[in-house]
Amino acid sequence: MATKVANQPLFPMPFPAMFFLLSIIFGFGITLSDAVSQTRHYTWEVEYMFWSPDCKENLVMGINGQFPGPTIRANVGDTVVVEMINKLSTEDVVIHWHGILQKGTPWADGTASISQCATNPGESFTYQFVVDKPGTYFYHGHLGMQRAAGLYGSLIVDPEEGEKEPFHYDEEINLLLSDWWHESILKQEIGLSSSPMRWIGEPQSILINGRGQSNCSIAAKYMNMKKMEQCKLSGSEQCAPFILEVKPNKIYRIRITSTTSLSALNFAIGKHKLLVVEADGNYVQPFLTSDIDIYSGESYSVLINTDQKPSENYWVSLGIRGRDPKTPPGLTILNYLPNPVSKLPTSPPPETPKWNDYDRSKNFTFQILAAMGSPKPPLKSTRRIFLLNTQNKMNGGYTKWAINNVSLALPSTPYLGAIKIGLNHTFDQNPPPETYPEDYDINKPPPNRNTITGNGVYRFQIGEIVDVVLQNANTLNDKHSEIHPWHLHGHDFWVLGYGEGKFSSAADETKLNLKNPPLRNTVVIFPFGWTVLRFVADNPGV
Amino acid sequence: MATKVANQPLFPMPFPAMFFLLSIIFGFGITLSDAVSQTRHYTWEVEYMFWSPDCKENLVMGINGQFPGPTIRANVGDTVVVEMINKLSTEDVVIHWHGILQKGTPWADGTASISQCATNPGESFTYQFVVDKPGTYFYHGHLGMQRAAGLYGSLIVDPEEGEKEPFHYDEEINLLLSDWWHESILKQEIGLSSSPMRWIGEPQSILINGRGQSNCSIAAKYMNMKKMEQCKLSGSEQCAPFILEVKPNKIYRIRITSTTSLSALNFAIGKHKLLVVEADGNYVQPFLTSDIDIYSGESYSVLINTDQKPSENYWVSLGIRGRDPKTPPGLTILNYLPNPVSKLPTSPPPETPKWNDYDRSKNFTFQILAAMGSPKPPLKSTRRIFLLNTQNKMNGGYTKWAINNVSLALPSTPYLGAIKIGLNHTFDQNPPPETYPEDYDINKPPPNRNTITGNGVYRFQIGEIVDVVLQNANTLNDKHSEIHPWHLHGHDFWVLGYGEGKFSSAADETKLNLKNPPLRNTVVIFPFGWTVLRFVADNPGV
Repeated sequence: MATKVANQPLFPMPFPAMFFLLSIIFGFGITLSDAVSQTRHYTWEVEYMFWSPDCKENLVMGINGQFPGPTIRANVGDTVVVEMINKLSTEDVVIHWHGILQKGTPWADGTASISQCATNPGESFTYQFVVDKPGTYFYHGHLGMQRAAGLYGSLIVDPEEGEKEPFHYDEEINLLLSDWWHESILKQEIGLSSSPMRWIGEPQSILINGRGQSNCSIAAKYMNMKKMEQCKLSGSEQCAPFILEVKPNKIYRIRITSTTSLSALNFAIGKHKLLVVEADGNYVQPFLTSDIDIYSGESYSVLINTDQKPSENYWVSLGIRGRDPKTPPGLTILNYLPNPVSKLPTSPPPETPKWNDYDRSKNFTFQILAAMGSPKPPLKSTRRIFLLNTQNKMNGGYTKWAINNVSLALPSTPYLGAIKIGLNHTFDQNPPPETYPEDYDINKPPPNRNTITGNGVYRFQIGEIVDVVLQNANTLNDKHSEIHPWHLHGHDFWVLGYGEGKFSSAADETKLNLKNPPLRNTVVIFPFGWTVLRFVADNPGV
Repeated sequence: MATKVANQPLFPMPFPAMFFLLSIIFGFGITLSDAVSQTRHYTWEVEYMFWSPDCKENLVMGINGQFPGPTIRANVGDTVVVEMINKLSTEDVVIHWHGILQKGTPWADGTASISQCATNPGESFTYQFVVDKPGTYFYHGHLGMQRAAGLYGSLIVDPEEGEKEPFHYDEEINLLLSDWWHESILKQEIGLSSSPMRWIGEPQSILINGRGQSNCSIAAKYMNMKKMEQCKLSGSEQCAPFILEVKPNKIYRIRITSTTSLSALNFAIGKHKLLVVEADGNYVQPFLTSDIDIYSGESYSVLINTDQKPSENYWVSLGIRGRDPKTPPGLTILNYLPNPVSKLPTSPPPETPKWNDYDRSKNFTFQILAAMGSPKPPLKSTRRIFLLNTQNKMNGGYTKWAINNVSLALPSTPYLGAIKIGLNHTFDQNPPPETYPEDYDINKPPPNRNTITGNGVYRFQIGEIVDVVLQNANTLNDKHSEIHPWHLHGHDFWVLGYGEGKFSSAADETKLNLKNPPLRNTVVIFPFGWTVLRFVADNPGV
């Protein structure tokens, strides 16, 4: 495996630094055998630890003393067993396996109050599920803001042994992206849920495999950065960048996953085109691009050809889109071996496109289409649900996001158990509204600012073909609407289309793509726009 | 009730400020009736909230939007019912009723892993117990460091209706003392349990009824304080001092309880002597003193006569003892009505005795003796347990306190339920050692620095008369031993004596006071010394 943290000093340190191999990121716990399917067993202790993700010491939620948590790697058909031991002192915890469908194991989805009671301090919970689709996935805490505390890691599924991916590559590199704040997640969370709301502000840093810099930049001398100093890193620091080591003239698959709390990111590599081949564990029609936008919860695989001048190194650059960025770019080096990593690229890092150039964002997103041979959607849906996405107030002062004017307040009894056993009193048996008022003006702040709370659920018959119209709208502020990613548990869905304004079944039906819509588990809605997705309710669970 | 937060501006603000009556501290939820015993019902929501206990905004763990939590007030024989609803997002919670014996209700003691499972987010737990002894008590969170987060309040038990206290007073004032850090409890806790340990440092402020000042002093202009500015407070701030309003020539009972995490405090009022009458809910032989030492978990009632010059106000002063103090004194005003509170005393606040003047500390403590008519201890014990109190290392690097070289590691199944049901596998059935090696030198750091962990329990037959010898020793640092308070749940105990060096049953037996030893629920051990206490095991529970 070629990728590891620098074993050469980073410029401008003049002497070789300690060798610090982060090979635990890859291959942890894997025992290869000839058997067609295996059980991959992991024992994880979740605990807080002091760590310096961006060169400033802070608390992170780690697993087995690692941050990010260990990478799970398995083949299609394998059973993953994770015994998670909660070593936190006062906090409960659960882990969600983002993108894993959990067919037959809805109890293992790892969502507090939905699929399970959260696991108490000192206790353990064993997740067990089959991975049935190759691709790039991740896992993360799904209680409170524990994901923002650092409880996440990669989950990579390879094809069955003997099977190949439908594209060739020589080596691969895995990048897990996140955003990081210096403020505790508790202050972040209580701030967001207080009246008046205390906004957490923009993240202090962007992390690549849990590594970033907030008080210096590795490209300061190449960029016109305000008061950002050139990093002095030996390479052995917890915040030393994760270096992408490559050999010349090879094809690399770079897996890129975003587990950010807030930030939409843009990823680019200087002088290298990216060939997008996978999105959320689904193959896409390959297309070349200079950079990709990646929203929280999404994953991509891109192929690069290391065919550039081999005597140079190149920047890997991450910037924020969709919000006026106040966070320094996340940077690291594509290191052509045997160049020393300290040999910085000759030109500045790729510049992130303007944060509010939404046309560019859409242009990228619209290129994502299913690869030939991908499953096609049913041509008609049997039910269509409209979800109007608004920012509201609750009880006079609290700021809440609402769907069709209902803000979810989770019940203390998990839905899955309640529904299986028939505990009808634990949540509202009336489903939430399936649409919003016809005359709602999405270009204005909500006329009724006050949302209600609710915990009702939509129920589907097995086999129902469901369209969900995600409808964006103006926030509480005039002429303001935000990009938001949406994720569906237990199902991939086809993204049938995107559009401006209010979706109209009459006028927009013909705009939907039923030919080669991409399958995803996460999708965005653009400001003042709509996104339509379709899924088959074929996986009993909640 | 005369005591409340200033309704007059505090010097040097020139104009009257908002009237801010903190009467909720007293009488909350009380409904008086003629019935002999009543049920006092409380419904509490525990949640984090932004608060400025010492003029710096921070998170506190509050109850029903209050900090400190509501005061419980009941009469002897009353049943207290507290339905506690956990409104925290990710944390479990329990509440311990410090000093309440819980006769017949050991399950209501509120100790996580001992008497109950901690209560999960979104769930509730109803505590129900009878208060059977008049006195000054308090309650606090008993999981992780939730007490240090601010989860505490007063619990005051009056005699049965129609009954009187054995001393006269006209009015009363209740003071709950605590220490406060700006760092989150999570960083404090993980810091203490990390290797290397990150010491939390001394508290930023001392709080009186949840109010203190860290960035200014109300007595700055009277004291030679380094860089401490004179406070500019109107009186309506959350950190404005809790003013002790009194009328001249009356007797006031001042109840003083310490729920500090670390600090031993000294309490004094300028020009007023204190007559100590109660300690931990037990009447003591009244004695006059200029100031009292109060350790975490202790409570006292003192009587003062407001017989000083009525045209003046007087300082109430709190300082730290037992540790080299780096915390500004806790200060407020004894406000002789109708003087304006802004009229500061003419002389400086009483000075706290030198932190390491242990002779003075002992002199105060030794004066605490049982009031005439108090229950006397049995003259002989049937069992004597020695508890050697050492600071150790664990697994090479972690700093732990240990008893007889065992550091408690709580089991995930609460002892009480495990023992009642007979789940013998949930904890070690072998009791911990009842003594320590005879040749142990308490004047030197532990020769074996490594402690083991354990979760065994001492078991007693009903009616056993138990002596506990609390033996202090040198910490890990040369020539260093610390004061520590010890608290026993479910029982008051007689404090039979204190001494220097190692307790010797042969030589020190005669020094024990069997005539009028005070009953307490909390007691200290002095540096390099011992304390012997005796209790009757008459309250089945854990």
